[in-house]
Amino acid sequence: AALTQTNFSSLLFDCLHVVVQSSEYRIEADTFGELKVPVDKYYGAQTVRSTMNFKIGGPSERMPIQVIKAFGILKRAAAEVNKDYGLDPRLADAIVQAADEVAAGKLDDHFPLVVWQTGSGTQSNMNVNEVISNRAIEILGGKLGSKDPVHPNDHVNKSQSSNDTFPTAMHIAAAKEVHEVLLPGLQHLHDALHAKAVEFKDIIKIGRTHTQDAVPLSLGQEFGGYVQQVKYSIERVKTAMPRIYELAAGGTAVGTGLNTRIGFAEKVAATVASLTGLPFVTAPNKFEALAAHDALVELSGALNTVAVSMMKIANDIRFLGSGPRSGLGELCLPENEPGSSIMPGKVNPTQCEAMTMVAAQVMGNNVAVTIGGSNGHFELNVFKPMMIKNVLNSARLLGDASVSFTDNCVVGIEANIDRINKLMNESLMLVTALNPHIGYDKAAKIAKTAHKEGGNLKETAIKLGYLTAEEFDAWVKPHEMLGPK
Amino acid sequence: AALTQTNFSSLLFDCLHVVVQSSEYRIEADTFGELKVPVDKYYGAQTVRSTMNFKIGGPSERMPIQVIKAFGILKRAAAEVNKDYGLDPRLADAIVQAADEVAAGKLDDHFPLVVWQTGSGTQSNMNVNEVISNRAIEILGGKLGSKDPVHPNDHVNKSQSSNDTFPTAMHIAAAKEVHEVLLPGLQHLHDALHAKAVEFKDIIKIGRTHTQDAVPLSLGQEFGGYVQQVKYSIERVKTAMPRIYELAAGGTAVGTGLNTRIGFAEKVAATVASLTGLPFVTAPNKFEALAAHDALVELSGALNTVAVSMMKIANDIRFLGSGPRSGLGELCLPENEPGSSIMPGKVNPTQCEAMTMVAAQVMGNNVAVTIGGSNGHFELNVFKPMMIKNVLNSARLLGDASVSFTDNCVVGIEANIDRINKLMNESLMLVTALNPHIGYDKAAKIAKTAHKEGGNLKETAIKLGYLTAEEFDAWVKPHEMLGPK
Amino acid sequence: AALTQTNFSSLLFDCLHVVVQSSEYRIEADTFGELKVPVDKYYGAQTVRSTMNFKIGGPSERMPIQVIKAFGILKRAAAEVNKDYGLDPRLADAIVQAADEVAAGKLDDHFPLVVWQTGSGTQSNMNVNEVISNRAIEILGGKLGSKDPVHPNDHVNKSQSSNDTFPTAMHIAAAKEVHEVLLPGLQHLHDALHAKAVEFKDIIKIGRTHTQDAVPLSLGQEFGGYVQQVKYSIERVKTAMPRIYELAAGGTAVGTGLNTRIGFAEKVAATVASLTGLPFVTAPNKFEALAAHDALVELSGALNTVAVSMMKIANDIRFLGSGPRSGLGELCLPENEPGSSIMPGKVNPTQCEAMTMVAAQVMGNNVAVTIGGSNGHFELNVFKPMMIKNVLNSARLLGDASVSFTDNCVVGIEANIDRINKLMNESLMLVTALNPHIGYDKAAKIAKTAHKEGGNLKETAIKLGYLTAEEFDAWVKPHEMLGPK
Amino acid sequence: AALTQTNFSSLLFDCLHVVVQSSEYRIEADTFGELKVPVDKYYGAQTVRSTMNFKIGGPSERMPIQVIKAFGILKRAAAEVNKDYGLDPRLADAIVQAADEVAAGKLDDHFPLVVWQTGSGTQSNMNVNEVISNRAIEILGGKLGSKDPVHPNDHVNKSQSSNDTFPTAMHIAAAKEVHEVLLPGLQHLHDALHAKAVEFKDIIKIGRTHTQDAVPLSLGQEFGGYVQQVKYSIERVKTAMPRIYELAAGGTAVGTGLNTRIGFAEKVAATVASLTGLPFVTAPNKFEALAAHDALVELSGALNTVAVSMMKIANDIRFLGSGPRSGLGELCLPENEPGSSIMPGKVNPTQCEAMTMVAAQVMGNNVAVTIGGSNGHFELNVFKPMMIKNVLNSARLLGDASVSFTDNCVVGIEANIDRINKLMNESLMLVTALNPHIGYDKAAKIAKTAHKEGGNLKETAIKLGYLTAEEFDAWVKPHEMLGPK
Repeated sequence: AALTQTNFSSLLFDCLHVVVQSSEYRIEADTFGELKVPVDKYYGAQTVRSTMNFKIGGPSERMPIQVIKAFGILKRAAAEVNKDYGLDPRLADAIVQAADEVAAGKLDDHFPLVVWQTGSGTQSNMNVNEVISNRAIEILGGKLGSKDPVHPNDHVNKSQSSNDTFPTAMHIAAAKEVHEVLLPGLQHLHDALHAKAVEFKDIIKIGRTHTQDAVPLSLGQEFGGYVQQVKYSIERVKTAMPRIYELAAGGTAVGTGLNTRIGFAEKVAATVASLTGLPFVTAPNKFEALAAHDALVELSGALNTVAVSMMKIANDIRFLGSGPRSGLGELCLPENEPGSSIMPGKVNPTQCEAMTMVAAQVMGNNVAVTIGGSNGHFELNVFKPMMIKNVLNSARLLGDASVSFTDNCVVGIEANIDRINKLMNESLMLVTALNPHIGYDKAAKIAKTAHKEGGNLKETAIKLGYLTAEEFDAWVKPHEMLGPK
Repeated sequence: AALTQTNFSSLLFDCLHVVVQSSEYRIEADTFGELKVPVDKYYGAQTVRSTMNFKIGGPSERMPIQVIKAFGILKRAAAEVNKDYGLDPRLADAIVQAADEVAAGKLDDHFPLVVWQTGSGTQSNMNVNEVISNRAIEILGGKLGSKDPVHPNDHVNKSQSSNDTFPTAMHIAAAKEVHEVLLPGLQHLHDALHAKAVEFKDIIKIGRTHTQDAVPLSLGQEFGGYVQQVKYSIERVKTAMPRIYELAAGGTAVGTGLNTRIGFAEKVAATVASLTGLPFVTAPNKFEALAAHDALVELSGALNTVAVSMMKIANDIRFLGSGPRSGLGELCLPENEPGSSIMPGKVNPTQCEAMTMVAAQVMGNNVAVTIGGSNGHFELNVFKPMMIKNVLNSARLLGDASVSFTDNCVVGIEANIDRINKLMNESLMLVTALNPHIGYDKAAKIAKTAHKEGGNLKETAIKLGYLTAEEFDAWVKPHEMLGPK
Repeated sequence: AALTQTNFSSLLFDCLHVVVQSSEYRIEADTFGELKVPVDKYYGAQTVRSTMNFKIGGPSERMPIQVIKAFGILKRAAAEVNKDYGLDPRLADAIVQAADEVAAGKLDDHFPLVVWQTGSGTQSNMNVNEVISNRAIEILGGKLGSKDPVHPNDHVNKSQSSNDTFPTAMHIAAAKEVHEVLLPGLQHLHDALHAKAVEFKDIIKIGRTHTQDAVPLSLGQEFGGYVQQVKYSIERVKTAMPRIYELAAGGTAVGTGLNTRIGFAEKVAATVASLTGLPFVTAPNKFEALAAHDALVELSGALNTVAVSMMKIANDIRFLGSGPRSGLGELCLPENEPGSSIMPGKVNPTQCEAMTMVAAQVMGNNVAVTIGGSNGHFELNVFKPMMIKNVLNSARLLGDASVSFTDNCVVGIEANIDRINKLMNESLMLVTALNPHIGYDKAAKIAKTAHKEGGNLKETAIKLGYLTAEEFDAWVKPHEMLGPK
Repeated sequence: AALTQTNFSSLLFDCLHVVVQSSEYRIEADTFGELKVPVDKYYGAQTVRSTMNFKIGGPSERMPIQVIKAFGILKRAAAEVNKDYGLDPRLADAIVQAADEVAAGKLDDHFPLVVWQTGSGTQSNMNVNEVISNRAIEILGGKLGSKDPVHPNDHVNKSQSSNDTFPTAMHIAAAKEVHEVLLPGLQHLHDALHAKAVEFKDIIKIGRTHTQDAVPLSLGQEFGGYVQQVKYSIERVKTAMPRIYELAAGGTAVGTGLNTRIGFAEKVAATVASLTGLPFVTAPNKFEALAAHDALVELSGALNTVAVSMMKIANDIRFLGSGPRSGLGELCLPENEPGSSIMPGKVNPTQCEAMTMVAAQVMGNNVAVTIGGSNGHFELNVFKPMMIKNVLNSARLLGDASVSFTDNCVVGIEANIDRINKLMNESLMLVTALNPHIGYDKAAKIAKTAHKEGGNLKETAIKLGYLTAEEFDAWVKPHEMLGPK
């Protein structure tokens, strides 16, 4: 066969694979013995051992990379503070450099562990320690796997325990995801909905309660409700953040801070705050910070509430845009992809569908987080990896879906004014406006007759002899029904 | 003020209250000491003590009366079997009589305890023991509170422990609620939907996918989908029952059956089966039956699936019945109560609303049951009262709501044939039928033009010169689009 | 039979029943026709009609009385404001008086409707309107059921719709339950735990991570973690309140405020605030306030997080108190009731069990609220009664259980100091303290040998010849392992 | 820097990347226009368009590969049946070959779409159609992207719609995952637990109820409870399968089977059954099969119940294995990895932790599935991708975790017989055995005295003068307390 791009890439990949396969493994050891470690990986024995002991779920179940990056930030901060407290500057600086690479995502391929491991995340902490240690050793010209001159425990993990570093990384990762993905996404959606609310402010339409016809409101008012929901979504998420900004670092194994120095906790939090630009502080009570993850449950609860809002908004929009002929048809949604090879004009509200699926997922995630959060025992909650996986997933999905929904749906929504007016004019409930002029009983008679005969209000009213066409026009003014008087 | 009925009843109530208040309490004792027990109550010291220690939630949170009645059945069965094994027949017979009264609901006022008590339901078991003991003492002419000649523990609770009797009562109560309320309710709904599916079988209507217009189906086919869901709902519930029919009785404190006689467990189960007409058997593994309530989680899962079906059906019906002018309007739902004092013709789909609220509740209950079920420890699960409360609540609500929804909504649904035909005829997707005759491209051109200009297919097709009116009528036949060829 | 108290009360009840039964019903009408109303009830035709149409769940499923009382407050506030806007003062004052009686719980028997009704709560709003109208008529000397001079719709419901009053009552009820039951309960628990944390501050004990032995902390530190959780519980609930304080009143049917006067909404909110002493304000966006109940979902999320904290605390306490011989046995829990008729010294942690069952229920309720909240459509969410039922249930249960748990468990907890010391002294992890003195390897050798042989650290260390008894005592000081250095 | 393996692989990767980047894209078109498609991919324009419109969640959120493989099976089956109904055998055979490659996982890299897309999974169906079409074209020597001679819609998707193929693929994927991963995993666990139950059958130990000491049972009996739970887990999953075996294929767009031939549905199901060896049948009601996914909710409910069982078992095992000194310590769990660098003998129950995290996740997934399942509208449920993602995730995680838990924990569990005996002998509740001999009161006195003084039963009994050492030994025989008499 000719050398196509496809062939070539496949060929190269195979080459690469063979080269790596044929290479010598290096031997690393932990306290349980020696293990073969792929030469092209920075991780060590404990990481390899975890991959052997926890074959659960496969690659898509890996520890979220945001947690790994957060560990990069934390390990750098710890190294800097440890340097202040006496760690050899040469080692500290190498650790800082290696940790920065982790934080920057340059070493993502070196973190193969899945979420379904030790419930304290110990093995991912060790994975980070091993990668940073080996990379720092490399920087300093040492031999990978030698633990010399940079030891994964003694130097990278100095003054730390999995029990306090993992929750610290959880909070850093959650805060960053909220600030970098979720809040911008929600703001983006908010602004687009707000623009639509302004654009639609003079379009008067039938209201619907119980899914049934009701008195009118403006399309702008209807969208204004959505704007308020998203505005409050942002507020709710922000409200949950103060307790996320509290970092467990410095609590070490059980919260007492054994083997740390006075001031270590505060300095690490300050350094993380400085590195991230987020207002992290040291947790006021380290026992709570290790044994409970109520702060993540709280944040997940806020995300759950956001999901509820999104479900409502996306549902409304798909129903208001239903049709083109047999639905409500008040909105025209942008057509983004072929809806059907059979029927032109069929626009499937696919962005609404993605958003509502995301909402359902977030609600499920919240239950997983809740159950995990409630099952901590004594000095440690051991549902940590599962909890952070779900919180990050919820934040990311809601943020991404908000952007996608905004760009591919909301901004392109158009009001189907003919349809809106038609429904408005056919509506029977405008009869309400006649009450003060001809009394409730006659008004009711008009509406009932129109409903029965399928007529419109004006014709029916005239036919019944209750008023003239001019009177009807003078008295029935939907645009005067949009607020208190 | 004049003596109105209201005043009178209030007056009488006050009288009654004063009389009871002023009455002497009797003194009963448990191993913790003496307590005052209202003289008009059959319960004793342990019940009173529980009311003092668990002031949680108030009267609406009482142990479901179905559990109490199930205890009546169980205590009768146990007394009969104990008689076989040597319990004094005079005592056994009095216990049987008293237990029958409990099972018949004659003593409901004597069970004041709330769900939020000991997680094994010990106090409700003792409440039952005390009531039956005192009532049996009364039958035998003894003195209430004397524990003589019928002792609550030694005789009523003979060969039993709270740990095996409470789960037995849970299973009896759940099975009865399923058979007496839930399954009849679902069958009632099934039959009504089926009748409608038959009634509507020749009404051809527009289909909707993604909430958007699609190819046609018959209204009977649409209702046929609901019929299938309810049919499977019944099947799902029945599928969960075999493990509900397994009774823990005979396991006593930890599942070993300590202090029972060989054969006791089997005989009690057989007697309960005989008394209830349901195929109860003794649980094959009593350790599982005390320490886990997976069978209730499984049943709750079935109820959760039923709730999912109900949500879909009720949602569809309210949307198909939305209007009268600005909704889909294909169904006319019965008008059961004033929807609005303003607008005649507005029928709120209130039965759908009740049903969907019930569905949401059942889904929430299922999570509570799941969490409770997962948190048993060692030889005992101590979330028993909470679990059975939720399962019974779900079964009852689904059963009752099915009947209410059927009688007050489904049976009165009428097809709005004019509206259905109008939407059908306006639909653009019938163009599909032209593909074989004029080709996809021309068909698409017709549909796109009609959509753009708001015209109908036939006129547009003729105007474009692709076919004649006769050809259109010959080729576009919705009733031939309802199945494979 | 002799006339016992029991007989007498039963007799009186029967009398009373006969009297009421034999009495003439009065006839009331709604727009659907006439219905018989019990003469001793203030409610009218719409209430009776609802009882006929919604036979779902029975009395325990009644609309929470807190919602009814909240309606009393709202109806009074509306009457006062309507008076300002011109409502006949005589009528307004009678409405105020009747509404006060509703708010005070004097008319609780007149609200028979269940939660499973119209999803907007319309029928409960009408129930309130009917009761207040009839009671006000009675006050003014009129005839019950005459709607004269106080009409349930025209006067009691003036400027209102079910669609805005029901959510207003929801928020008032939720806020009151939070302030009157939940927050005081949590504070009570907080204070008791804090007192224990202080009491236990000098008791050094073994820490446990992964449920396994770990380094020491003080029992006071351990309880300090619980204190922090409860402190944050209070904070979390308070954080959700600002959006609960926003009232929908003034939005009427679809949020526009049709048929109200400018200023009505603000004045009603201010009056409710004044009546309740809580900072209620008018909702900034009435469309959101009717169509979504995100604020209740948010509050429910906070309650869910509180439940998570409670589950952790109660679980820890029951495990730390497990025994008396074969458990952890570090705490002695108060003995409140007979645990077992067989074994003295067995204290079942029943308060922990009630609390953890409550926690599971709250988590389930949260899912029900979430699902209901996500399924609003267009201008109205119609899961209102279900949502508020669950939120009130969660708040009440958590509040009550906190008090019960505090008074019957926490305040009576005693440290089993002998046991704590024994476990502490036997612990192998104290070896950590030797690392700086004899090196990690020798320390590890001591620990491993002790573990293998079942010996204690000191003896093993001496036997191995690594140090003297004096050195051991000088170097191994658990109280110096409780914090950073 | 020297050319290390790491550098080399990185270098090669960059090379490869550059090459691919610089390569010419081919142009493909859908009805919306032309798009650039990477030359090394078989997918086409609709797939590319979806990647542009749904940037949600990233690669870890891709459509589960099991769904893609299931599509491979379905597309092959459809091609075979279409061939029977007249599809050009040359095309059919090429489709079969290409579909087989998809089913075999050879083309996994050609399915980049995420779950968060159209709720009907349309885009993944088209992704499959495009890949099979292009691969079949390649097989037949045609030009990629030409749609000639194999058209993705006309040939690969013949007689199909996304609306029936996606749910068919869902059911195939779920059934295969259940049979290939979940059930074998559960059976593996069952067998290991059963072996332990047999191994431990003669070890008598203290029972625990309410986490407190209770009467004895054998360790084999305790494990027997777990065996029963897993046995029932398998049974529950199997019970849910009959409705999973029902395939929607043949329903096309709305369930009517428009554009299919009579017999198509049945033949496709039979072919899928033959290809998979699983008893698939055509769904009896296609409307239900498209509009509702109750069968997946039901299966998810079964998985939820399995998760509940797993949580109980794993929790028990970690608590029974807690220690080594300050826990219950009855079990010795295998040590799989370094637990702590500080304390030898500390074995963290990491497999229990992974399992309980999985259980929590499955419970959350179940809520997501429930919510998705309940929100279908009219002829189509559009939460399909989200639902199947969660069901597959739950099945996979439970299956994998069962194997990991078995191999790395259960098989290596050893009874700590010394500890078990010690607790057993110290237990106060053995006093129960004295009741028949010396009466309850004296027995209670013995127990209370022993509890108070910390003594053991035998010594205390003798000291109190109630019996002799010989009598004690003759009467107190734990091994006779393990069953009924």
